[in-house]
Amino acid sequence: MKFLMCVPNISEGKDLTLIDKIADAVKKTEKIKLLEASSDRDHNRSVFGYLGEPAPVLEATKRLTEIALEGIDMSRHKGDHPRMGAVDVVPFIPIRNISGEEALQVAYEFGDYLGGKGVPVYFYEDAASVTERKNLAEIRKGQYEALAEKLKEEVWKPDRGPALFNPKAGATAVGVRFPLIAFNVNLNTKNMEIADKIARSVRNLSGGYRYVRAIGVNLTELGQVQVSMNLTNYNKTPIHRVVETIRSEAARYGVTLASSEFVGPVPLNALEELVHFYLQAHDFNVNQIIETNLLD
Amino acid sequence: MKFLMCVPNISEGKDLTLIDKIADAVKKTEKIKLLEASSDRDHNRSVFGYLGEPAPVLEATKRLTEIALEGIDMSRHKGDHPRMGAVDVVPFIPIRNISGEEALQVAYEFGDYLGGKGVPVYFYEDAASVTERKNLAEIRKGQYEALAEKLKEEVWKPDRGPALFNPKAGATAVGVRFPLIAFNVNLNTKNMEIADKIARSVRNLSGGYRYVRAIGVNLTELGQVQVSMNLTNYNKTPIHRVVETIRSEAARYGVTLASSEFVGPVPLNALEELVHFYLQAHDFNVNQIIETNLLD
Repeated sequence: MKFLMCVPNISEGKDLTLIDKIADAVKKTEKIKLLEASSDRDHNRSVFGYLGEPAPVLEATKRLTEIALEGIDMSRHKGDHPRMGAVDVVPFIPIRNISGEEALQVAYEFGDYLGGKGVPVYFYEDAASVTERKNLAEIRKGQYEALAEKLKEEVWKPDRGPALFNPKAGATAVGVRFPLIAFNVNLNTKNMEIADKIARSVRNLSGGYRYVRAIGVNLTELGQVQVSMNLTNYNKTPIHRVVETIRSEAARYGVTLASSEFVGPVPLNALEELVHFYLQAHDFNVNQIIETNLLD
Repeated sequence: MKFLMCVPNISEGKDLTLIDKIADAVKKTEKIKLLEASSDRDHNRSVFGYLGEPAPVLEATKRLTEIALEGIDMSRHKGDHPRMGAVDVVPFIPIRNISGEEALQVAYEFGDYLGGKGVPVYFYEDAASVTERKNLAEIRKGQYEALAEKLKEEVWKPDRGPALFNPKAGATAVGVRFPLIAFNVNLNTKNMEIADKIARSVRNLSGGYRYVRAIGVNLTELGQVQVSMNLTNYNKTPIHRVVETIRSEAARYGVTLASSEFVGPVPLNALEELVHFYLQAHDFNVNQIIETNLLD
């Protein structure tokens, strides 16, 4: 079977009745597995993650969208997180037996649907129509408040839907992207300078690995510091390489690794390269795992 | 969902019509996934591995048994591999969301069924009624040819079925066991003495880890030697510990590891401890893997 994940972010983090209604609509979609539903009051934002074959995922995303567009009024939205729409970002993420092309088809079909509802849609990352729209932060620059003006510019003509400001719905970014892994490494030191230096050594922004975003975090209660990361492409920048670089950079300060943790869901395929590297099992394939036979 | 695996060994490795008929019967059992079907002419023996919920697995095993008992005549069987029955060994292996107790129930029910067909049944490993029957090799000692005499002894009274020699079917060992991992490590040397020494250092028989069986193997074409292993309990003797011991023992001869390989299916849970050890991700749980959500 083909498995696609979708992780929409919507601009409502306080109204639990509405949030529950959305989670419920997703959960009740046939052949859909809801993996996460989390809300942040300060961000005034919720994230839903769900998994299934392409058609049910599209269906669940439409149901979520319908309720969110009806229940959220962006002209009254306040929250700490950057946002531009009631349904703010909709990333489709290929998980298993599904090509990027197939995921793109779903993203485009969802874009058509949303555009048809009068919402300006920008395709981002792998779905972007032009390089300038690859980066979500670029698209969302100026946020909801800038939309009315941006939509008048040719360069911000939406990929789907009308080039007209929709005060209630705002605009939506729809994309296809690689699964992201949230991964943290804790160091046996209280010295934040070391965490910051190591974060800089592995992150793309300051000369590190291309698909790593990283910051140093103080774990005061534990008496440790942390290198907190997003690994945005585990194929091109694999987990083990980042860990071993952190280990080697920490060693120069006489610091050892205390532990590491995955925050949230991890794609099975990300473990393949770990087995290759640490066991030197060069030909190991996740399809050798007994349980994967049940996913086909 | 609960997942049970069954890996029956039957005493026919040449008659492809019969072997195909058995594989087909298993494959056509509803909700059963056939993982492997392999035959060895010299052993005159075939192995079928399949996976599913307990009830379908029991059903598939009955179908396999019916065809094997009809088509195989042990009084005319010759082959290099030790054997005592047409359906020689039937191990049930808990894979996911299933307790040892539940697997035992299936083994007992299958024992009842087989006993009811007039076949003496011995329960082995976790299903053994007495310590002396835990070890399959002990039960099978003397093979088919010894059965007529053994069945007269009180100590070899079967756990199910008549204490009477069944010339056509022989006897069957039915058990519940932990998933076994066939795992090989290749060394960058042609020196077989080193492979033998390292195999002895890790295997239970000669003072090594309790759940490791190992031999040295010459890989003449590769110009390497191999430590070829069965890991019989990856929880109690985890893969990484065996690999790191081999690495450290090889180093004393100035020898490095060239590669390793898993032969055949690997249980997902066996990878959990690898992630714990190599990434120091102490709390990692296979349920964090996105795809496992589809197995529940």
